[in-house]
Parts: sequence; C-alpha cells; structure tokens
Amino acid sequence: MGYWGKRDDMIVHDVEPYNAEPPCAMLDGRSLTPLDTFYSRNHGPVQQIDPDEWRLDVDGLVDTPLTLSLTELRNRFASRTVVATLQCAGNRRVELAAFRPIPGQTPWGSAAISTAQWTGAALADVLAAAGLCLDAQHIAFAASDVSHVPDPPQPFGASIPVAKALADEVLLAWEMNGVPLPAVHGAPVRVVVPGYIGARSVKWVRRLTAQEHPSDNYFQAKDYLLLPADADPAAAASGQGLSLGVAALNAAILRPSDRQTLPAGPIQVSGYASAGDNRGVARLDVSVDGGQHWSQADLEPAAGPWAWRLWQVTVKLPPGPGVIVARAWDTSAVVQSESAEHLWNPLGYMNTAWARVRVTGGL
Amino acid sequence: MGYWGKRDDMIVHDVEPYNAEPPCAMLDGRSLTPLDTFYSRNHGPVQQIDPDEWRLDVDGLVDTPLTLSLTELRNRFASRTVVATLQCAGNRRVELAAFRPIPGQTPWGSAAISTAQWTGAALADVLAAAGLCLDAQHIAFAASDVSHVPDPPQPFGASIPVAKALADEVLLAWEMNGVPLPAVHGAPVRVVVPGYIGARSVKWVRRLTAQEHPSDNYFQAKDYLLLPADADPAAAASGQGLSLGVAALNAAILRPSDRQTLPAGPIQVSGYASAGDNRGVARLDVSVDGGQHWSQADLEPAAGPWAWRLWQVTVKLPPGPGVIVARAWDTSAVVQSESAEHLWNPLGYMNTAWARVRVTGGL
Repeated sequence: MGYWGKRDDMIVHDVEPYNAEPPCAMLDGRSLTPLDTFYSRNHGPVQQIDPDEWRLDVDGLVDTPLTLSLTELRNRFASRTVVATLQCAGNRRVELAAFRPIPGQTPWGSAAISTAQWTGAALADVLAAAGLCLDAQHIAFAASDVSHVPDPPQPFGASIPVAKALADEVLLAWEMNGVPLPAVHGAPVRVVVPGYIGARSVKWVRRLTAQEHPSDNYFQAKDYLLLPADADPAAAASGQGLSLGVAALNAAILRPSDRQTLPAGPIQVSGYASAGDNRGVARLDVSVDGGQHWSQADLEPAAGPWAWRLWQVTVKLPPGPGVIVARAWDTSAVVQSESAEHLWNPLGYMNTAWARVRVTGGL
Repeated sequence: MGYWGKRDDMIVHDVEPYNAEPPCAMLDGRSLTPLDTFYSRNHGPVQQIDPDEWRLDVDGLVDTPLTLSLTELRNRFASRTVVATLQCAGNRRVELAAFRPIPGQTPWGSAAISTAQWTGAALADVLAAAGLCLDAQHIAFAASDVSHVPDPPQPFGASIPVAKALADEVLLAWEMNGVPLPAVHGAPVRVVVPGYIGARSVKWVRRLTAQEHPSDNYFQAKDYLLLPADADPAAAASGQGLSLGVAALNAAILRPSDRQTLPAGPIQVSGYASAGDNRGVARLDVSVDGGQHWSQADLEPAAGPWAWRLWQVTVKLPPGPGVIVARAWDTSAVVQSESAEHLWNPLGYMNTAWARVRVTGGL
C-alpha cells in the first residue's frame, strides 16, 4: 500500500505536500475511480481532523451567521449525491514542459483527473439557512491546511461566483463512492464544485464567507492564473492573467501507453473526455496519421452531467513509429486545439491540446 | 439603398432567398450593428406580414393552449430588452471552402454575425401563461417562410431545450435597436435565442409547441449538423452528426482587410470575439509571426452577457507579405483551434479556427 491508502504504483510527484496520480491505464474503463486510484493534489499537509471537533463557520454577507458541527450539517440538510469529475488545472502539464521548462510546478501526466460519487449537503441549502444577502457575489472557502508556497505561509482557500454556489450540484461532501471521505480527500468535509478546476473543490473546509469580491487567498488571487506566454511568472504576484474557474474541454488517451510497442493492425484505443460547466462531450475523434483521417470513437454514456465520458475505438495501427492523436468536441462544437506548444504558459495550466501517445507498430 | 433596406455595399450571396453580409470593416467599432448593416440569412422568402393579422399559437404540452395577437403579446407580458449577438453557424465558411469545396452552401465571410438590442416578451413568461407541462423537454418554433431546400418544401423551424427556453434572455422580439423589427429580420415577431446559433432565432414565428423531442423540422433534424469530414453530405438526411445549438467561441479580424497593403510599422488591428452560452470572452491575442509571439488586445466591455466583445491592439507590421492572426480565449481557458483545415466538414459549419488576414507591409 502506498501513502494515504493509495495503490503502490501511484506516480508520486511529491511526498509532502502529497501529489500523486495513477498510471493512466488504471483510470481506463471505470466510470468511477476507486479511492485508492483517485489523484491527489495538495498545497499543504494532509489534515487529520477529529470529526467531532470539526466545525463549519458560515459568515460574511448573511443574515444569520452559522456554526455547524458535522452532525448538524448531516441532520439539518437534505443529503444529495452527485457523480462529478475533478481535474487539476495542471493536468497534462508535462506535455507543455516538453516545449519549454516550467520550473517549480508539478509535472502532471494525463491522470490528474478522476471521477467519484460524492454525497453531502448542497452548498445552496446551507447558504439559504444562513440567509444569503443579495449583495453577495462570491462564496469564499477557507481550509485548515497551511501551505508554504505563499510567503508568509497561508491556509488554502478559493472562491466561486454566487450563481455557481447556488447551483444544486455544488456540495459540502462527507462521502466519496459511498464511504466516509478519507483524510487525503478532505475529511471530514470538503467542497465539491463540479465543472470547475479541482482547486476550487476545497478540502478540509472550515469556513464559508459570502462576500462582494473573489477570495484574496493566494490560490485564488495569485495562483491558478493563465498568464501570457511571454509574462514573467512573477507577474502572477500582481494578479495578472486569466483567473481559472470553469474547467475546459479536455481529453486524453489512457491506452495504449506512451512509447508502447504493439502489433501493427487493428488495436483498441481508449481514454476519457471531459467538458466544463454547462457543456457536454459531443464527439471524440482518433487519428493514426496526425489528423489527416479521423475515426469516431464510441462514447460511453456519462454517469451524470458532471462526469467525464469514457471512450474507445478500434483503429488500424501502421507499422513503425507513429503517434496516435485524439481530440474531443463539446456540445457547442468547440474542439480541442492542435498543439500544446501554442498553449504554453509560464505556470503550465490548461493543456487542452489534442491528446497524443507515441507508439510503434511491430510486425 | 440595397435590398430590404440594407446598405448598398452589402455582399449579397443570394438575392432569393436573401443572404447578405456587410463588408467586415462596417462591423468594426460599433457595439450595436445598425439595421442597414446587420447580416441576413434566410432559407425562404422574406415575409411581409400584416401585424394586425399575425397570430402566435402556443400548443403541445401545455395546460392552456393560447392564440395571441401582437397587441395581446405586447400588453399581457412584461417587455424586456437584451443586447444579443447573432451569428450564423456558417460564418467564416469561405475559409473552410479554401481547403476543400463545400458545394451548395453560402460562402460566408467573417461578417455573418451582428449585434442588436432586442425588445420583446420573455419566452418563459409566455410558456408560463400557457402552463408548461413538466414532461416538455423542447420548445419548437414554426415560422411562415417556406423553404425549397427540403423536398418537399417546408416552412422554416427549429427547437431549443426547455432549460434554455425558460432562461430570461430568450425573447419573442418585436423591436430591434429601438425600432419595430423590419420585415427582413422577422417582423412582426421573431425568436431571439442569445448564445445559440442564429438558425434557432426563428424569424416570422407563428407557433410555439412544447414537446418531448427536438423539432423534426428539416432545419433542426437534417441541417445544421456538424458531420465528420469523411461523411457523405447526404448522411445529414439521416440525422447523423452533431446537432448544432449552443454557439461556439469565435473571433475575426475586421481591420485591416484581407489582402490589404499597409505601411510597415505600427498598425491597429481590430475585430470581434464572441463566446457561446454561459461563457465569456476572457482574452484575445494577435500575432504577426504566425503565433510565435502574441500581443494581448484591449477588449472593450461587452454591452451585456450575450454580446460580442470588440477589441483592438497596435502591432508592428513587418515589411513584405505576411499574415495577421488572432485567437480568442473563453472564460474556461478554451482557445480557438489553429487551423480551419482540421475543422473542415461537409456542410461547412462552425469554422472557429484562428482568424487570419493576409497583408503586405509596404515601405
């Protein structure tokens, strides 16, 4: 068994803070990712919180500030279950770093994404109980894990716009795939924001604040920013760049593996595709000739509107070295960009380029 | 004066049915497009309807079918005003056709898009008055203009999902830029579906039907489909392909014009960018070296959440022949695809590739 109950073949990028993703093939073919396989991205130490001691404060622009115990949260609000895919904004960063180095950032492969069934209270119900004021524009989440990335160190935090916070699917979750949330995924309670980058699904949440402005937490205001390619990464410190929130259309090939040799001829290619908030995956194409000809993959039904879609297709692998390419289309007929090179950015976020694996067709 | 009150320099692709777009530069710098400049895309003859004779039937899965006169529609429901961009799904088709012919389809340039301020009743209010049933999944629109594209000929029609139909911004509009809707834009009443392809904003609407399935009208079921590149266009007849609805992220350069010669050195580049339903335009980049280096354009404030964003930037044009490229990013950090070649499809829809104009820097 690896760290934190994870499988022992996890690719551990950092032990502390713990950052790990499974081998790509381990995500394949399972609409829900088992707990021991679910990727884990942290900015501070995994928290070990006594559920009886845990409290959630709800404050800011509300009529009635609340302090809720776990028992109160569970008893006072209807329990809801949502299947949702979470994806790190740095998923597939390693492909960007192949064009130009991205120092100081975790070189995620294509498996910083996973899907679980989450159970908890709707954030909207808790905000309603507190009497959310009309002038609240954002809901800020504060957690208890202190990160040493900012100077001085700061607990992790984030915020989402009120319109999203009031949507049914946003949960304060205490269960994951039908069992109590494990420590490494935010026990006793985490936020789950389907359709948004993983960083907004704050683990070990302890405070919700309704406010007029986005959170000024480091990880909302000065990180998770898409900077222009020629910007100094230090520009993020002044809050330049596109603040990431809604997840982008993305896809990856899970099998075959990169640099695999397979018999030339018909082979099965499979993977995932995921669209962001208010979009679905409408089509997925695979090419073995760099995009000259495409085969349409079979898209499995989604486990719900917030879940990825797994796909597979049989294509004819030519002999010799080659590249298999995949691209997803969303329900607005937006398609992924061809080249990660044109998406390069100093913090290495949002590599949403066509997925590629290098393979060799053997004889 | 050109046809239908349009400016005499409109690029008229067809006189009957009337299909016309303005020269690109005429869209530049104006957040609202004047009526004489607004593009017009039709599948049948422009209707000349006596407003006193016009009736709107509301039927299907409703408790109380309605028949409304224009006076009743205007008096019974609150009037709402929305600024919305409409864009033909075939906008920028001419760039796709440069790679491979697209027979039988209008070769739109980059100006099959315009923005107006629309005033009318919220579709949601009319559906509420009729008592929309819970099992209604789609709202179908039937018009009076008969198209000879289908065989046998058929009036134009379309449908949108109920969730969109109930959104505040969807109108039954009788006014455009503060004056009564002109005949060429659907008088006396048209549907306006902000964030969707123009084909769903049905002109000369005469019937709304609440139903379980999308409309089986030709232009919903067998046209406006994104087919795979290798599909026989006749495949659309069986309803294959991705049914277009939500508009995609797109952008174009309005100045300079394609094939223009300008003095080398600093020049101003300007254009529009538009994101689909539930997305905004977050950034726009311009390059004079094919995407090696990008300058960020200034994005003008949108006239509302459903309006395009105009932009401009000063770049240094090198001497000699070259290409100016622009690309837009939406609020989910999705960016337009590099090449229209990879977006080619048999009916020529949804060219959302990087915008390009060929220019020569003179000395």
